[in-house]
Amino acid sequence: MEREELSGEQEHAEALQMYTIERPVYNEAHLRSQLLHRKERTSITRQKLALWFQCSSQRAKAAVLSFLPILTWLPNYPVKEYLFNDVVSGLSTGVVQLPQGLAYAMLASVSPVYGLYSSFYPVLLYTFFGTSRHVSVGTFAVISLMIGSVAVREAPDSMFLTMSTNGSNETAILDVMARDARRLQVAVVLTTLVGLIQMVLGLLRFGFVAIYLTEPLVRGFTTAAAMHVVISQFKYLLGVKTMRFSGILSAVYSIKAILSDITSTNVAALILGLLCIVLLYGVKQLNERFKKKLPIPIPGELIVVIVSTGASYGLSLADKYKVDIVGEIPSGLRLPVVPAFSLLPNLVTDSFAIAIVGYSMGISLAKIFALKHNYSVDSNQELIALGLCNFISSFFQTFTVTCSMSRSLIQESTGGKTQIAGLLASLLVLLVIVAIGFVFQPLPQTALAAIIMVNLLGMFRQFRDIPALWRTSKIELAIWLVSFVASVLLGLDYGLLLAVAFALLTVIYRTQSPKNAVLGSVSGTGLYYDVEEYEEAMECEGIKIFQSNSSIYFANCELYVNTLKEKTGINPEHLQASRKVQKKEKEKANLNLTLKDKEQGVTHEVLSYNVEEEQKNGQLRDGNTESDTEDAVFLRSVGGVHSIILDWTPASFIDSVGAKAIKQVIKEFAAVDVRVVIAGCNRTLLSQLDELQFFSGIISFEMVFPTLHDAVLDCQHSVPALCPNMGPL
Amino acid sequence: MEREELSGEQEHAEALQMYTIERPVYNEAHLRSQLLHRKERTSITRQKLALWFQCSSQRAKAAVLSFLPILTWLPNYPVKEYLFNDVVSGLSTGVVQLPQGLAYAMLASVSPVYGLYSSFYPVLLYTFFGTSRHVSVGTFAVISLMIGSVAVREAPDSMFLTMSTNGSNETAILDVMARDARRLQVAVVLTTLVGLIQMVLGLLRFGFVAIYLTEPLVRGFTTAAAMHVVISQFKYLLGVKTMRFSGILSAVYSIKAILSDITSTNVAALILGLLCIVLLYGVKQLNERFKKKLPIPIPGELIVVIVSTGASYGLSLADKYKVDIVGEIPSGLRLPVVPAFSLLPNLVTDSFAIAIVGYSMGISLAKIFALKHNYSVDSNQELIALGLCNFISSFFQTFTVTCSMSRSLIQESTGGKTQIAGLLASLLVLLVIVAIGFVFQPLPQTALAAIIMVNLLGMFRQFRDIPALWRTSKIELAIWLVSFVASVLLGLDYGLLLAVAFALLTVIYRTQSPKNAVLGSVSGTGLYYDVEEYEEAMECEGIKIFQSNSSIYFANCELYVNTLKEKTGINPEHLQASRKVQKKEKEKANLNLTLKDKEQGVTHEVLSYNVEEEQKNGQLRDGNTESDTEDAVFLRSVGGVHSIILDWTPASFIDSVGAKAIKQVIKEFAAVDVRVVIAGCNRTLLSQLDELQFFSGIISFEMVFPTLHDAVLDCQHSVPALCPNMGPL
Repeated sequence: MEREELSGEQEHAEALQMYTIERPVYNEAHLRSQLLHRKERTSITRQKLALWFQCSSQRAKAAVLSFLPILTWLPNYPVKEYLFNDVVSGLSTGVVQLPQGLAYAMLASVSPVYGLYSSFYPVLLYTFFGTSRHVSVGTFAVISLMIGSVAVREAPDSMFLTMSTNGSNETAILDVMARDARRLQVAVVLTTLVGLIQMVLGLLRFGFVAIYLTEPLVRGFTTAAAMHVVISQFKYLLGVKTMRFSGILSAVYSIKAILSDITSTNVAALILGLLCIVLLYGVKQLNERFKKKLPIPIPGELIVVIVSTGASYGLSLADKYKVDIVGEIPSGLRLPVVPAFSLLPNLVTDSFAIAIVGYSMGISLAKIFALKHNYSVDSNQELIALGLCNFISSFFQTFTVTCSMSRSLIQESTGGKTQIAGLLASLLVLLVIVAIGFVFQPLPQTALAAIIMVNLLGMFRQFRDIPALWRTSKIELAIWLVSFVASVLLGLDYGLLLAVAFALLTVIYRTQSPKNAVLGSVSGTGLYYDVEEYEEAMECEGIKIFQSNSSIYFANCELYVNTLKEKTGINPEHLQASRKVQKKEKEKANLNLTLKDKEQGVTHEVLSYNVEEEQKNGQLRDGNTESDTEDAVFLRSVGGVHSIILDWTPASFIDSVGAKAIKQVIKEFAAVDVRVVIAGCNRTLLSQLDELQFFSGIISFEMVFPTLHDAVLDCQHSVPALCPNMGPL
Repeated sequence: MEREELSGEQEHAEALQMYTIERPVYNEAHLRSQLLHRKERTSITRQKLALWFQCSSQRAKAAVLSFLPILTWLPNYPVKEYLFNDVVSGLSTGVVQLPQGLAYAMLASVSPVYGLYSSFYPVLLYTFFGTSRHVSVGTFAVISLMIGSVAVREAPDSMFLTMSTNGSNETAILDVMARDARRLQVAVVLTTLVGLIQMVLGLLRFGFVAIYLTEPLVRGFTTAAAMHVVISQFKYLLGVKTMRFSGILSAVYSIKAILSDITSTNVAALILGLLCIVLLYGVKQLNERFKKKLPIPIPGELIVVIVSTGASYGLSLADKYKVDIVGEIPSGLRLPVVPAFSLLPNLVTDSFAIAIVGYSMGISLAKIFALKHNYSVDSNQELIALGLCNFISSFFQTFTVTCSMSRSLIQESTGGKTQIAGLLASLLVLLVIVAIGFVFQPLPQTALAAIIMVNLLGMFRQFRDIPALWRTSKIELAIWLVSFVASVLLGLDYGLLLAVAFALLTVIYRTQSPKNAVLGSVSGTGLYYDVEEYEEAMECEGIKIFQSNSSIYFANCELYVNTLKEKTGINPEHLQASRKVQKKEKEKANLNLTLKDKEQGVTHEVLSYNVEEEQKNGQLRDGNTESDTEDAVFLRSVGGVHSIILDWTPASFIDSVGAKAIKQVIKEFAAVDVRVVIAGCNRTLLSQLDELQFFSGIISFEMVFPTLHDAVLDCQHSVPALCPNMGPL
């Protein structure tokens, strides 16, 4: 902000501030022997270790407080200031929690009442363990769908078909009761396992796992999830009775099944559903438009539920028009039940996927709100809190919960201040469960489908990411698309796995497709830039500066070496080979000379060329004339390049394969009398090179320079050919 | 070399060569507007494209020559100079090729004669297509074992058991003929597929795939393979008849089976086997010791085969002592047969693993020899050549081949000059197949087991890698161990897959565990080093320089931001929160002041502190006194730090998640009046930032500096507090 006020003149003055350095040229040998002295560091590590193992009542207290955050904030709860806000916010969230609970239970393929349980127990528990003040824990469409698809996979319709012989023709009867009971068991035990995994990860301080779900990945994934959800709800909207599919290509099978059965559409259900969609969408638009004027948002979901329940009851939709309704909702709470652990073995991978997706949704929301309201959330404690919510609640037959974006926004925008808002929302749901649950029995399923669909419409807006990512980053676009396509086609579990693997591979890809450049100096500045890209960057005569912006390790060192040879235009192998051929042909020629010109034309040419060279160079150098001539031939072939500088400024690590490759290439160049030096190597990389015994044989510390400019100056000095582009240094 | 001759004085003189720069301080805005001008580059890309699509007879000729390298070297073959060497080398290699072929066929679980075929057809073909002059193509233990374990998996003993009722008791009879026929089919069709995959990869220019098999991985893998091989051969050495296992934990099951059956050891077989081992090992030691004196190495394998065949025939070992012998070896070649393609579907993953392992063994050997003898091999053509060898040969019932280290060393050390040596070795094998194959029928299997075991002893020397890697690189040690353990326990296929995945993950890990440092300047040099590590590095007052040697992207940006806050000791969140609390408490205090001291002690303290601060600062600044006071409180809390410099010298790429995180952190620091600038960012990274629309809002080009020193100078200038450590600039 300060800087914006600077006038043009001030900026000019600033630009004129001088950068002045005058010092000897340093190389690594000099730095080590004279300039830099290592500090003793062992004591620090020991101190840290000591600190780590220290036990004290203070640490114990801190541990308890971090495990039960409610102990830190509840005693200081400013009742007068916060309570009213929390009550308003809690009730507003509760009236959304309720219909969403009923609706998302359908996604999880369990009876709606379990959605109500899932909107009560975990929400209550989060009040005690959670560190985020604004997120609304509870049912969430994507997670519910994932649960549902596992439940359907483990308890498919085909498992509960019994053949009954009715006179002469056999018919298959679906035992819906047994199927739903089994699906509930699967959903519940999955939730136990998810909770357990989350708790263990949290205790192991694995709160960082969410980072692997990068934003484009999550957006592609949630868009795919929304796609799956909408597809799965079409049958309820249309009132057709098709199977629910799960696994690979389930989306395609579902659409096919609905289309083939579309003639049996229940028109009453469709009309009611469409009306609900229009109503709910309208309310959402109103809420959006008059956000600032409305004290609390209009509870569209609740209105839809009440109106459609009323209509269903009044018009007897279920009886007269065969519209599917929610059906029995038992009142009151149930005693805890031990989940059916025998089902566990098949669910391990699924529960990992669900645990991590659930957590990463939660933590990202929590962080957004924490940033906005200037407090911090503890990602490990959030993981433990979610895990406890899921684990404990699962004994009361709930399915997996996490934080819901839409509800959290309501909770925050209606003025919620603390976890008390969530507590009140859960109590509202409890009231419904205990007292008036039965009221919702005539609620048509098509209305719930409408609620689910409208809630997920926002996610389809994420398709707009595609053009945006195309402009900014092709790699991230690829992650988005892979995540979306894989999740739509392979199902959410395998899709997520593939997407994470792909996202990690893009990192490898980035290191394997570095930008390589030959650098040149910008006169008088000590700065070096790509000669192909900038007009001002001029190569120094006899020196090639090669930069590749990546680390050097097994998967890219071959590429590095090849590009180095290509970009500098010097290939030691070719030179060596041609040296050998020339030597041999010369020997032959000499031999033939004594045998009086018996050789072919080719050797003749080489001979005369060599003789010419010999004449030219014989006077310039003393010593062995023959080898000198060869050198001269070489220097000609390498275009007068005497030094190659490897700019390792952008390299952050090297492994043994990379170090060997570099050592090899330095030797190869040395064999054709080109000196290779290394510049800009950071201290970490240098200590890695030390450990890899890189500095041995012909490679010495004198070949390593702290900056590129040091290296260039040294190379110019050691072969006294002035570089015309260095300007007035 | 030149440098070694430099005397100490010269080096001293060199060190005194001066590094002098005097120029204005630059920032990115200045660089873009005045210093650097982009070259037009479109034309270059177009030229390259044009060149790419150019068709000409020259290109066609080059393509043919690169596909059939024999056309380039055979016409110039210097018969007089090379032929003798090639004959000696070819025959020496051939006499090893022969017994290895017989022995490795056992590993591939097919009859020995197919080992002879595999030592003939592919070797012959490689002469035409190969670019390496010294490698010996043919059977190879690791690949043979991989083939064998697939064959056993696809045609297990249990598949060929038939129950026969012999009187009252039922016995299971193993149909050995049918089983071996099936295993041969599997091995052959696998070879076809391997060849096909290699060819396609070669045509797609995928010759680089071998780089993913980094050296520690390959060494761990081959050690595990040697382990498997030795375990699989124990039964032949002992002459016990146990099943051959494949798949996960097969090594453990094999050992268990042998141990439980050890009482049925055939003593004659064991003694013969041990004698063969001792003999062969002795010969190998002699060859090693008198390497230079022997014109050609003593063909130990051949001696073992001849002697043991003779002994077996003379003493009638098979009849009298029940020693297992090779059995029928049909003479002559067979007509080509179309492989049983119906078996393909199960073999796809295996063949990928075998294709890539085989190729990477071959190419690494080829490169070593090419480097030694100064010629170059074309990795794509090598892939195509190996693919053709495998594919075409498989129609003649061979199993997969690649280059063998031991044979290649013999071929090279006995003076082999070109592929002609390989050709002659294959002709020697052909001679045996056609004329005297039947001679080897009494050869005991235990002798072959001895040959296999002794040949693999060298691989166990790779265990010495473990202490060596422990000293140089823990990460590479981890790769070695994972590769070894996984390959031993899970089998070579899954083991390899896991090892490759692990090796790639270590790259991710390296970017996630960067070294983070706060840098300080070394007086007067313009160089900046870790203040914790070097005594000479001194922090500049009011400026924190943070360096993390990694790129910034989704998987490490959170870590980057957290470490930045931790290392610099400035956490904007805490500051903001404390600002809020202080503000509120001050308001309260002000209110309470009017209400005449009703507040508690805590507020009192804050109040008096604030008042004090107000008095101190009120005179220094004009404008709004209240906010100024706050600022003063802040500056105190941040320890006088006014600028943070992010040194991005080691960063090579950034993604949108990383850019967002950095933008966020810059905003957070701006809110507490700390200026964050970026230094040493390379041009590629800058253009990525441009594309990500990073430079918008409060982030401007004035915050980016070409070097760290520019940034430090600018930060000192914008807040005129002199840095005491900058020395005489």
